[in-house]
Amino acid sequence: MDLLSQTLSSIRAADADAYQAALAHQARLTKPVGSLGALEDVGNRLAAMAGRCPPPQPEPYAVALFAGDHGVVDQGVSSWPQAVTAQMIANFLAGGAAINVFGRQVGATLHVVDVGVATDLPDLVCGPDRRSSDGVLHQRRVQPGTADFTCGPAMSREAADQAVGVGISIAHELIDGGCRLLVPGDMGIGNTTASAALVAVFTGADPRTVTGRGTGIDDAMLAVKMDVVRRGIEHNQPDPADPLGVLAAVGGLEHAAIVGLLLGASARRTPVLLDGVVVQSAALVAGALRPEAIDYWIVGHRSAEPGSPAALDHLGLRPLLDLGLRLGEATGAVLAIPLVQAAARLLREGATFESAKVSRSQ
Amino acid sequence: MDLLSQTLSSIRAADADAYQAALAHQARLTKPVGSLGALEDVGNRLAAMAGRCPPPQPEPYAVALFAGDHGVVDQGVSSWPQAVTAQMIANFLAGGAAINVFGRQVGATLHVVDVGVATDLPDLVCGPDRRSSDGVLHQRRVQPGTADFTCGPAMSREAADQAVGVGISIAHELIDGGCRLLVPGDMGIGNTTASAALVAVFTGADPRTVTGRGTGIDDAMLAVKMDVVRRGIEHNQPDPADPLGVLAAVGGLEHAAIVGLLLGASARRTPVLLDGVVVQSAALVAGALRPEAIDYWIVGHRSAEPGSPAALDHLGLRPLLDLGLRLGEATGAVLAIPLVQAAARLLREGATFESAKVSRSQ
Repeated sequence: MDLLSQTLSSIRAADADAYQAALAHQARLTKPVGSLGALEDVGNRLAAMAGRCPPPQPEPYAVALFAGDHGVVDQGVSSWPQAVTAQMIANFLAGGAAINVFGRQVGATLHVVDVGVATDLPDLVCGPDRRSSDGVLHQRRVQPGTADFTCGPAMSREAADQAVGVGISIAHELIDGGCRLLVPGDMGIGNTTASAALVAVFTGADPRTVTGRGTGIDDAMLAVKMDVVRRGIEHNQPDPADPLGVLAAVGGLEHAAIVGLLLGASARRTPVLLDGVVVQSAALVAGALRPEAIDYWIVGHRSAEPGSPAALDHLGLRPLLDLGLRLGEATGAVLAIPLVQAAARLLREGATFESAKVSRSQ
Repeated sequence: MDLLSQTLSSIRAADADAYQAALAHQARLTKPVGSLGALEDVGNRLAAMAGRCPPPQPEPYAVALFAGDHGVVDQGVSSWPQAVTAQMIANFLAGGAAINVFGRQVGATLHVVDVGVATDLPDLVCGPDRRSSDGVLHQRRVQPGTADFTCGPAMSREAADQAVGVGISIAHELIDGGCRLLVPGDMGIGNTTASAALVAVFTGADPRTVTGRGTGIDDAMLAVKMDVVRRGIEHNQPDPADPLGVLAAVGGLEHAAIVGLLLGASARRTPVLLDGVVVQSAALVAGALRPEAIDYWIVGHRSAEPGSPAALDHLGLRPLLDLGLRLGEATGAVLAIPLVQAAARLLREGATFESAKVSRSQ
């Protein structure tokens, strides 16, 4: 059995009994029932994932940023040059990007995975699996970018499978290294175009309603981008009943690796915190492959990209943050880490009415 | 000149030039313009508060929980006994409440201020300004609770002024002690009733639309609570042009102290992170006394209480979190602390396109 099949077959639904035990424990804590809103549900779900209440504290945590390039940029869907994907990897390793700043704020370690960058990485970051003070680079390039999906599939099924395998392997490496909460993110010029196509295929939405401005393109370029997504789907005719086929047809190498990370973590019953539209579109693929995996995902934020709410509705998941973010790089998810920690900590450390000698409501 | 007048006269609007400098700096950082949404505005506002860009990091930070009791509980507006106010102070000092758990998560120190509790504090916490491993108790009781505002003013104008002074003093003490971000919170059975009355008076809303279930009362008690708020306003006829008069008529001693903290911090150009409806209703009083003070407030969250969105609309402020929280104790604000820190840190530590050698959009 190959790595993906093995992973899929080992994913089990979260533990409903542990969820109920957590729900009952929330009612004993010194606060009105339900007064911590969405945070109570996060705590209860962490208990279900771990199969016990209180749940273990989901720390330490790590960010895994998967980088890839996209042949579809030839169609003029982004105002940024493709070289920026590689340049930003150098920025991540030098500690200057927003994800570095936010990662330092919350104490997250950063792993950058080149799963499909099209250009050479700057000299700064050469050498195998290079470590800098701000992050570790994992050189796992499957191929240099995808093909333009308006002319054929973005990649072969074999390349998609291989990139999924990279993500599964990274999940195992991080969990074996002690991580108890994984935070996948993305870097790739053009990748919101692939995300829009994935969202349209899995949700059945009109491509125009789930294609957004990404980095902030103007009306003319947005019209081109919407048309490119439509043409890519028409040309490839991807079948949502064959999720890996959809991924190969209109996805990206970083999307594929994120699919792998989502599945690998779920197989290890390890919570994953979802970033914006790129990660959420990958989550549609992973959820289609194994719906039980969804139990292990918490949504960090709803992004400003229209594909994000569409993907979340389809997954049946609610976001913790809604700040109009649209940067990617796992920035929105990392900002939600303290909320997830607080939710677990409440179940672990909160006093009960009995222990604190506080009267109950009458 | 008395303490309040002195404080009001020393409050200056935030620095518009520093805001513009921060806005310009955001565009040089290695991210698409505006891609960090609401977080960019928080960073820019912190620069305006400090009068320089980048702004200083708003840490360390402290939570100041003001506790008071409410005569209006005699009308049957809460399902919790009044003794819970004092019992929860013991819980705060023992470290078992939700605010303790969340405070430990984000590294906030906790100051509990008895500004108007009606009952004796449990033996556990007796003694002047007692310090425990989890917090410091400040004994500044102005009087044991307010009077029932359906029969007359909740307190005298002098008591309101004295409680405001407690809050101003606490702000100065914390800032003199090094704090660079203040997070006021509340504890007081019955205090969402007083909050609803304050919101109705300052926003002009029908009391029924801004009175909520607080700790989770049933329909019958909610109807009573709505009627109590209406009767309190009708009986006292508070005039929003006289904010201190409104506070004395239908507010609480903890509301008054929070008004003082908000004004004291603004006078020192120190940012304040607002919690839910109790703090936000106090902010209406403080904003009415000195609109420039609003420049120094960042809203941690929108609470599930209907008075919260009404107050925020009136203040013209947007919340960072919207998680359906309705606990008080500063819990919602404390959860937003990492977001505020991240916003400042981005302006301080983010690389620019030039420094990181990343190409710009074309």
